[in-house]
Amino acid sequence: MLLHQLPTPAGVIDAERLRANAQALPARLAAHGVRLRPHVKTPKCLEVARLQREAGAAGITVSTLREAEAFFADGWRDILYAVGMVPAKLPRVLVLRQAGCDLKVIVDSVAAARAVAEASRSAQAPIPALIEIDTDQHRAGVAPEAAELIDVGRALHEGGAVLHGVMTHHGGSYAESTPEGLAAAAERERSRCVRAAERLRVAGLPCPVVSVGSTPTAWGAGQWTGVHEVRAGVYIFNDLVMCNIGVARPEQVAFSVLASVIGHQADKGWVLVDAGWMALSRDRGTQSQAVDHGYGAVCDAAGQLLPGWAVTAANQEHGTITCAGADAGPHGPALLERFPLGSLLRILPNHACATAAQFDRYAVLHGQDVQATWSRIHGW
Amino acid sequence: MLLHQLPTPAGVIDAERLRANAQALPARLAAHGVRLRPHVKTPKCLEVARLQREAGAAGITVSTLREAEAFFADGWRDILYAVGMVPAKLPRVLVLRQAGCDLKVIVDSVAAARAVAEASRSAQAPIPALIEIDTDQHRAGVAPEAAELIDVGRALHEGGAVLHGVMTHHGGSYAESTPEGLAAAAERERSRCVRAAERLRVAGLPCPVVSVGSTPTAWGAGQWTGVHEVRAGVYIFNDLVMCNIGVARPEQVAFSVLASVIGHQADKGWVLVDAGWMALSRDRGTQSQAVDHGYGAVCDAAGQLLPGWAVTAANQEHGTITCAGADAGPHGPALLERFPLGSLLRILPNHACATAAQFDRYAVLHGQDVQATWSRIHGW
Repeated sequence: MLLHQLPTPAGVIDAERLRANAQALPARLAAHGVRLRPHVKTPKCLEVARLQREAGAAGITVSTLREAEAFFADGWRDILYAVGMVPAKLPRVLVLRQAGCDLKVIVDSVAAARAVAEASRSAQAPIPALIEIDTDQHRAGVAPEAAELIDVGRALHEGGAVLHGVMTHHGGSYAESTPEGLAAAAERERSRCVRAAERLRVAGLPCPVVSVGSTPTAWGAGQWTGVHEVRAGVYIFNDLVMCNIGVARPEQVAFSVLASVIGHQADKGWVLVDAGWMALSRDRGTQSQAVDHGYGAVCDAAGQLLPGWAVTAANQEHGTITCAGADAGPHGPALLERFPLGSLLRILPNHACATAAQFDRYAVLHGQDVQATWSRIHGW
Repeated sequence: MLLHQLPTPAGVIDAERLRANAQALPARLAAHGVRLRPHVKTPKCLEVARLQREAGAAGITVSTLREAEAFFADGWRDILYAVGMVPAKLPRVLVLRQAGCDLKVIVDSVAAARAVAEASRSAQAPIPALIEIDTDQHRAGVAPEAAELIDVGRALHEGGAVLHGVMTHHGGSYAESTPEGLAAAAERERSRCVRAAERLRVAGLPCPVVSVGSTPTAWGAGQWTGVHEVRAGVYIFNDLVMCNIGVARPEQVAFSVLASVIGHQADKGWVLVDAGWMALSRDRGTQSQAVDHGYGAVCDAAGQLLPGWAVTAANQEHGTITCAGADAGPHGPALLERFPLGSLLRILPNHACATAAQFDRYAVLHGQDVQATWSRIHGW
């Protein structure tokens, strides 16, 4: 099958770009002596994760237990579920562990630690847990200097669970856009998480693993002293948010949405496509960044960026494409001639995690050839 | 199964509210002598559409050909595909029509009309098409007074297709929030679409059907002279955008997201739940309205609104709930006591179409009982 035979809208992967992305980041990290534990929540795709394994990944990070179950069934054993654990989810964790999956969970409170410890004791099967550290006041986690950190550690270690280490995600790194800013964010992430590990060790608690990361800090960090593993997800696809942050270029974005031109408002300079927010997602992650790409930047069918063109409005199944807000592009017959009815465009995503989630499968392209269809894991 | 046994996050339907919503709008329209053609793009669910059929719907509107195929397989025959037709999608239309589905398409250009006419001639199977009318300068459609309107009509009628009528969606109605504003928007929608029909008829062309609508104008219109059918979708679930517009109340919102409390930043007044944007969508439809509900308004597990509480930040699998921006709610131990780890909350959606799309199934609740699981149609 060829690209132009795909029903639109379609989520497409550029296989060459994907392979290059899969290899570049682990190569950089290996040179610094730190391992990558890819966060598979971006593609949620078995075949993509196999490429990541070929590139050296021995373990993965997941965002749902559904992912843990699917990737374990595909042969992954070392899996970190990186969303705070609650009592009701522990039975599913135990089922996976009893089946041979080395699933690890995270906690950031004494209450959650006690629940994990109690489940461990009841099942006589110690569950390994990492303590989530708050390194940027951004979301979850225990502050590195908080007294509660030691309490959480004790609740795990003395309660019957395994205190496996500490982990953090410095989401604040997404606000950076210079090498200096990224390096500083990465250093805050590293130093604060390492500090938490040291406090646990000084308190006589084990803390074998320090796990940090995000795609921006994985590319931006200068050093990883005291860190054992880096988690990054979006690096495998890249997206416009990463381009604005400065850790990717548009020609490295491996996932895009193929769309058909379904109409025009030629007098206004509008091209209408069949990729609305159902295909692109409502993510407007570039809105607050240096270059606002609306709901996505527009490429021709071959994936070449059309500078200035963006999806500037979106309804459920309609996207409106304009050039620099319709000021700069052609109008009238010239617009119809440039983008005829039925012609194909590709839209680069603001946020690959959000846009890819709108599809249940990927068409995998080598040039114009659709060489495979890969499924996505959906739901919880 | 009971509500608290559902894995979270979960998309849940309140069956009583759903039934009430299914009946109220068609009853109002029947009293005005106009029929409802529900837009099933909101729930995308066979069981919900069956309730709409029981409430009098003889035909439906769909936003994808995937929906058309699924609803036809479930016994619907009269289906309008309400996104502009392009040549590459016509073979799927013909397959459905040849199987007995009375599928209708829409066009808003001579180029699209010619493509539909040509496919009709080639297949010796005239395809019925409605001309989309632009009544609010908002998206697609031919202006009611445009010379092109007659050209499009002729291209269909003389080219071998069936000119079935005109249709419009006055998306501008979403900007209204008063009965007067809604009535005026509805009257613009009605009068401009009827005007287009009259122009076609004066030109000697057939125009049996005038189809208008949206949930705001379906509730807001004073009269439908010249209109044959009203299309509305979100009325079946309702959402916070509809509440702000003034056509629904929170206790009429039939779809919500069940979430678990997974942590706190108690000093900041933050409650973290496992419904992030993957569950809630990135839709921020209330941002520009009178009451901004963030990523959704918060209810207790029974569906009672907690006034002032909203999801004010969202990451992929994390939602941050605060009370009036964390100013008004409890902090510290009082917050932990009010929202213990693992406790359940329900989030009302800004935009039901977008939030429901994040789920592949619905848990259907009668009170606290999960009485059924209904699937959603996904993809294109």
